[in-house]
Amino acid sequence: MASAPSSRASRFLTVLGGTPLDPPPLWMMRQAGRYLPEYRQVRSEAGDFLTLCYTPHLAAEVTLQPIRRFGFDAAIIFSDILVIPHALGVGLTFAAGEGPRLDPVTDASGLARLSARLDPACTEPVYAAIAETRAALPVETALIGFCGAPWTVATYMVAGQGTSDQAPARLLARRDPALFQNLIDRLVETSIAHLSAQVAAGADALQIFDTWAGVLDPASFARWCVAPLRRIVEGVKAAHPDVPVIAFPKGVHPQALALLKDVGVSAIGLDWTMDRPTIRAELAPHFALQGNLDPLLLIAGGDALEQEVRRIRTDFAGVPHIFNLGHGIRPETPVAHVETFVELVRKPL
Amino acid sequence: MASAPSSRASRFLTVLGGTPLDPPPLWMMRQAGRYLPEYRQVRSEAGDFLTLCYTPHLAAEVTLQPIRRFGFDAAIIFSDILVIPHALGVGLTFAAGEGPRLDPVTDASGLARLSARLDPACTEPVYAAIAETRAALPVETALIGFCGAPWTVATYMVAGQGTSDQAPARLLARRDPALFQNLIDRLVETSIAHLSAQVAAGADALQIFDTWAGVLDPASFARWCVAPLRRIVEGVKAAHPDVPVIAFPKGVHPQALALLKDVGVSAIGLDWTMDRPTIRAELAPHFALQGNLDPLLLIAGGDALEQEVRRIRTDFAGVPHIFNLGHGIRPETPVAHVETFVELVRKPL
Repeated sequence: MASAPSSRASRFLTVLGGTPLDPPPLWMMRQAGRYLPEYRQVRSEAGDFLTLCYTPHLAAEVTLQPIRRFGFDAAIIFSDILVIPHALGVGLTFAAGEGPRLDPVTDASGLARLSARLDPACTEPVYAAIAETRAALPVETALIGFCGAPWTVATYMVAGQGTSDQAPARLLARRDPALFQNLIDRLVETSIAHLSAQVAAGADALQIFDTWAGVLDPASFARWCVAPLRRIVEGVKAAHPDVPVIAFPKGVHPQALALLKDVGVSAIGLDWTMDRPTIRAELAPHFALQGNLDPLLLIAGGDALEQEVRRIRTDFAGVPHIFNLGHGIRPETPVAHVETFVELVRKPL
Repeated sequence: MASAPSSRASRFLTVLGGTPLDPPPLWMMRQAGRYLPEYRQVRSEAGDFLTLCYTPHLAAEVTLQPIRRFGFDAAIIFSDILVIPHALGVGLTFAAGEGPRLDPVTDASGLARLSARLDPACTEPVYAAIAETRAALPVETALIGFCGAPWTVATYMVAGQGTSDQAPARLLARRDPALFQNLIDRLVETSIAHLSAQVAAGADALQIFDTWAGVLDPASFARWCVAPLRRIVEGVKAAHPDVPVIAFPKGVHPQALALLKDVGVSAIGLDWTMDRPTIRAELAPHFALQGNLDPLLLIAGGDALEQEVRRIRTDFAGVPHIFNLGHGIRPETPVAHVETFVELVRKPL
């Protein structure tokens, strides 16, 4: 990977390595997205969402768009957490405005129908897009590969869609923990393969999104989120010992985040509900911190945005911190507010 | 209130007063609900949900049904948290399977259109139902009145419905905090009036449901949830100094619950994500605790249900604890599982 940035050159990788920087490095979850007119243009040319994900040149193009416009310190490959179930043979569609629809996996026969390995027709385009993006990115800009955490991916596979509280997967895990463990195990193995291949293709860091971690009780979080995460990190690091991994279990309590101290991740993502003084005191000694602006403040703009950016920078001054949102940027966000936001994060405190 | 139970007679009120009991007193959120065939019968006779809420004899009947069947230690009056906006003149319907639909209040003119006071056509049936229920309840069974917390009620008023994360209210609060404060103030005043009248009609205790507290950042939680709760408790206690109040801010972190220590509530409700050892150590000295079984375990039944009931009883042994669910019972719950659950809570540990 001659084109990969060294940790010296990349501000993002420097902070992931544990060194604080001021101003903090910056990227935004869903930064390649519908709030950008140039994204909407490519998206409409591609036709549907999965075509965009699976066409390397288009996926690379939308990954690069926010870097050209805002010069973020990291790009994240344009893809989707449901690529893994799709690559296991699960039917997947994205209806406009309705979110994903999958053929539900709810019993042993559904589990038995999953492919033995990931279909290269789904995964190879991701790796090709990563290689193309890495070659086109400035040397100082890091490229992030990702996957969904097994729990979160399983919630969509069991329900066949997003629901208000992902009760179908929670109920299956209560009713038949052995079956559910098998599903999680399949997702652990395939996540290791998918993440490792992303690193081999040129990803400089990895993020594991556990969007639905917050609906679990503490014992279930330990079993379905923490233990699988540990196995994934160990598996990826067996092949790529130096790649930094960011875990983002959204919606969990601070003491649940503390359970991640020994799983080998370099950073944790923080949603906007987190109490920063608590997080700083209890977690900053163990991880770099990434977050946690409420995405709605990017829509509101004005004084509220400016004050909160300053508060976040102040609260995390002196500890390794990557500025980001607490959740993905929303499509209705004005681009002008993002421009202001980037200036606010980069100006002297 | 000659028919009200003394705190000596009511196991529920004894624990609310700070005295632990073993086995713990028990009731279930949404215990008057669709999982019961006798409820479905009355509901189908009433026609629609609001007719059931606003017909005192029917509301009293469904409130009493789970007491007759299971002998719970408390009944909660059958009503809805959206009675207050409805009584302020907001159009409200419940379409089958779709949840509530309200005429949204999104700006100053919408706020100005709200009535000056609660419409007795909406509120008087609630008080009549409470009086009728109290007269029919066993003396040892407490009757709980309730309202929605201002924040949660405001989220429905602004969005006009439930959404995945109540972003419309969160955004309005960010964009125009003065306007949003006015809306919250109206809800504080009317909540005090509505709760006080429920006590006067015969309610022995009150619960304030803040179902959407968990979507807020810490500063917003302090402003939109904690401060209004304090004002409501003060207002109610000015007229009814001895009535115990239970706060249930769902989905918040333990340190956010700790902010409620000085607001004058007797107990806090705990959802199923709470880490009980943390809660016991930090909060049991300040409140009675109510909760926190995952409602999905009542659907799953079997060993998983039995083990978790035992864990909850063990974790909260020796502190004032009212056994309850971490959220409302679901319509698909088998009645036989509820019967088993009641036995498990009541048998010697």
